[in-house]
Amino acid sequence: MTLPDGFLAELTAAVPAASTGAAELAAVAVDRSGILTEGVPDVVVRATSVGDVRTTLRLAFEHRVPVVPRGAGTGLAGGAVAAPGTLVLDVSGLDRIVSLDPVDQIAHVEPGVITAQLDRVAGEHGLRYAPDPASAAISTIGGNIATNAGGLRCVKYGVTRDAVLGLEVVLADGTLISTGRSTLKGVAGLDLTGLFVGSEGTLGVVVGATLRLRPLPERTLTVAAAYAGVEAAARACAALAQDRREPAMLELLDQATLQVVDDAQGTAYAARGGALVIAQADGPAADSEIEAIAAVLGKEATWIEQGVDEEASARLVEARRLALPSIETKGSVLIEDICVPRSRLAEAFARVEEIARRRGVRIYSFAHAGDGNLHPLIGYPPGPVPPEVLAAGDDIFALALELGGTVTAEHGIGLLKRSWLAREVGPDALGVHRAIKTALDPRGILNPGKAY
Amino acid sequence: MTLPDGFLAELTAAVPAASTGAAELAAVAVDRSGILTEGVPDVVVRATSVGDVRTTLRLAFEHRVPVVPRGAGTGLAGGAVAAPGTLVLDVSGLDRIVSLDPVDQIAHVEPGVITAQLDRVAGEHGLRYAPDPASAAISTIGGNIATNAGGLRCVKYGVTRDAVLGLEVVLADGTLISTGRSTLKGVAGLDLTGLFVGSEGTLGVVVGATLRLRPLPERTLTVAAAYAGVEAAARACAALAQDRREPAMLELLDQATLQVVDDAQGTAYAARGGALVIAQADGPAADSEIEAIAAVLGKEATWIEQGVDEEASARLVEARRLALPSIETKGSVLIEDICVPRSRLAEAFARVEEIARRRGVRIYSFAHAGDGNLHPLIGYPPGPVPPEVLAAGDDIFALALELGGTVTAEHGIGLLKRSWLAREVGPDALGVHRAIKTALDPRGILNPGKAY
Repeated sequence: MTLPDGFLAELTAAVPAASTGAAELAAVAVDRSGILTEGVPDVVVRATSVGDVRTTLRLAFEHRVPVVPRGAGTGLAGGAVAAPGTLVLDVSGLDRIVSLDPVDQIAHVEPGVITAQLDRVAGEHGLRYAPDPASAAISTIGGNIATNAGGLRCVKYGVTRDAVLGLEVVLADGTLISTGRSTLKGVAGLDLTGLFVGSEGTLGVVVGATLRLRPLPERTLTVAAAYAGVEAAARACAALAQDRREPAMLELLDQATLQVVDDAQGTAYAARGGALVIAQADGPAADSEIEAIAAVLGKEATWIEQGVDEEASARLVEARRLALPSIETKGSVLIEDICVPRSRLAEAFARVEEIARRRGVRIYSFAHAGDGNLHPLIGYPPGPVPPEVLAAGDDIFALALELGGTVTAEHGIGLLKRSWLAREVGPDALGVHRAIKTALDPRGILNPGKAY
Repeated sequence: MTLPDGFLAELTAAVPAASTGAAELAAVAVDRSGILTEGVPDVVVRATSVGDVRTTLRLAFEHRVPVVPRGAGTGLAGGAVAAPGTLVLDVSGLDRIVSLDPVDQIAHVEPGVITAQLDRVAGEHGLRYAPDPASAAISTIGGNIATNAGGLRCVKYGVTRDAVLGLEVVLADGTLISTGRSTLKGVAGLDLTGLFVGSEGTLGVVVGATLRLRPLPERTLTVAAAYAGVEAAARACAALAQDRREPAMLELLDQATLQVVDDAQGTAYAARGGALVIAQADGPAADSEIEAIAAVLGKEATWIEQGVDEEASARLVEARRLALPSIETKGSVLIEDICVPRSRLAEAFARVEEIARRRGVRIYSFAHAGDGNLHPLIGYPPGPVPPEVLAAGDDIFALALELGGTVTAEHGIGLLKRSWLAREVGPDALGVHRAIKTALDPRGILNPGKAY
């Protein structure tokens, strides 16, 4: 597939930021999913204005050129992978924090703002941007919106969707619309904001966002507890829910993960037990809440430690922070992302271990346990993904659906999980997806082949 | 307009719950908006099963009969008003709480469940259904979903959308789909759940909902403070935001409202000041939080009282609870529902008073101040709505947009505000609404003429 005659000439005349340099094209062909394409896209536009985005889409619409919207390219599901014959529309250069109002606790930003950067600037006003995907230091707000990114804090503060009040979106034909509002509530018309959040670049290109900020908690405290194994650890997390505790973070790491952290970092987590739970409480009741959480977690624990202050608390979170980098020292990983009702979390962990044994693969699992969101990471040697790894991934998706869960809690469908989306939502709901896609993108130029 | 030949015979043969009794039709022609139709709908189906809903919609689709979905009929915007030539599909008989899991903190319910009833049942498990529209004792979950209802608690706990994890929806042609999931997170596919929430019956009929419950706070405490006038009171609310306090409730009542409460209830609120602010704190830090809130509210107050315990706290909320019933003793009211950025709340109050003077009407205003959500109630004598009342309403909508806000925060567009929706969202975004409507309801049978 190649671009239609005359398109490139018209594009480069109208949008100076268009480029066909080989290195630039190679850089925007892939994301962090590990998916490779045979070849690179035909052209990349590094937009520096809303006008660039509108003109690019208008021309692509006219010439029916497939467009792959792109932020920082940190996605894990292949949503930003771009094949030959496509145009990559990179909006990471639109990176201004346009305004921030500390009374309204609202920020207006461009999509290329780095997530952690917004959080830092909000911090200067005693506020924060609550969603904190593990990629926050490198991913953009626009990419977070495209995938409805989650994170560690979302067990208490909600996912990206919960922080987005309104959007500016360029539609497939270059039309610019606003959705939502700059107020905390509003029900005028359909929830188009929610429709664009998590749509993985298939319905429009986000060029502006109105985001809700939250007060920065004055105090955050941590407790860590080890258990005989993942089932006991998952039971302890369920007991927290049963006791109606609302931790600000609730993470669970399995033995394989603890072992690899120990190997890479010289720590001794695995000696404490076969699984680790790390919980935080924040806000004005942090002290009493962390006590209450520790009391519940302590019941079946083989080891427990409470951070006496914020510094000690931060140290207790290190095992979690080091999990992914430590695992990556062992080779490549396929990062999965299922979610189950939290009452099924213990079963999910046990069944994932069974899948690892049956498929003869190494799986490291950790979870945002408070949400029932489990990340099994399947290891493999550098090179293409081996078939048994893909098979184990499929087993994990099937398990998620069997337990009443979903195949993706925060990474998205992208290219990786397309066949599973159909199984999860069923043919009739998939038909609704396609009807909406056709209504908003009648020529099918926006991120074709992704998501649904 | 009349029903097509043969439709009624086919419907009554297939759905025994169909009726054309005059009294039944009159009862379902109106809602609580005060809007009257000339005549009544042609038939009402009081569905008692999902099968009834599916069959009714399948036949209505085939025969192109307009369908007005209906819950308890407590809407304030005319969304359930049904004119001659329409079929009313009443789902209030689908009223079972199907399941409730205290670990997952999730309930599966049918749409006819009364909102307060779900909250009560959740309370037996130490949980609650957080959204609490003023109509909670009489409105249904399905109606709350159709309008994305708000309430007093939503300043801390979010609106209906935030409590809905998944839906079962019958589409215009009778197809049944599921949206969302039974997990706390999930990003597989488009956010169809969010699209149906607040769609006012224009895209499908909700026949089941998966709802998130929240822990019932152990303790709720209240402080009330009076001020010289609404501007000082609104400034105090803004100061709370500036101090990054997160009250569980933050209500503001103006002098006209206080006076009418005093007249109707024999109380003496108006003597304390020209405006009243009532704030609550709940959860494990309720005691320290209410102190901190009282410290901020106290600065400009002419009177302040803190509830020493929960009983005294409940008494302090009475003025708010009695506001609407007291106002209604004076005659009819048009209940408005605008939202502005909370930094503009003082200005909004002042400008509403100016509108009342200019139009020569009596306006009682109270606000969910923490959200910037203002309810100006325009009084008029029993009978049709006088033109100066409608004109004042239009002035208030224009004011909301001028201040960067919305014409409806929690009641919906319905019939009342259709022309204002177009002004708020603009022609291009309205075009997206219509494209989605056509994609999901190609024959336009679902609640035609409502919302957009």
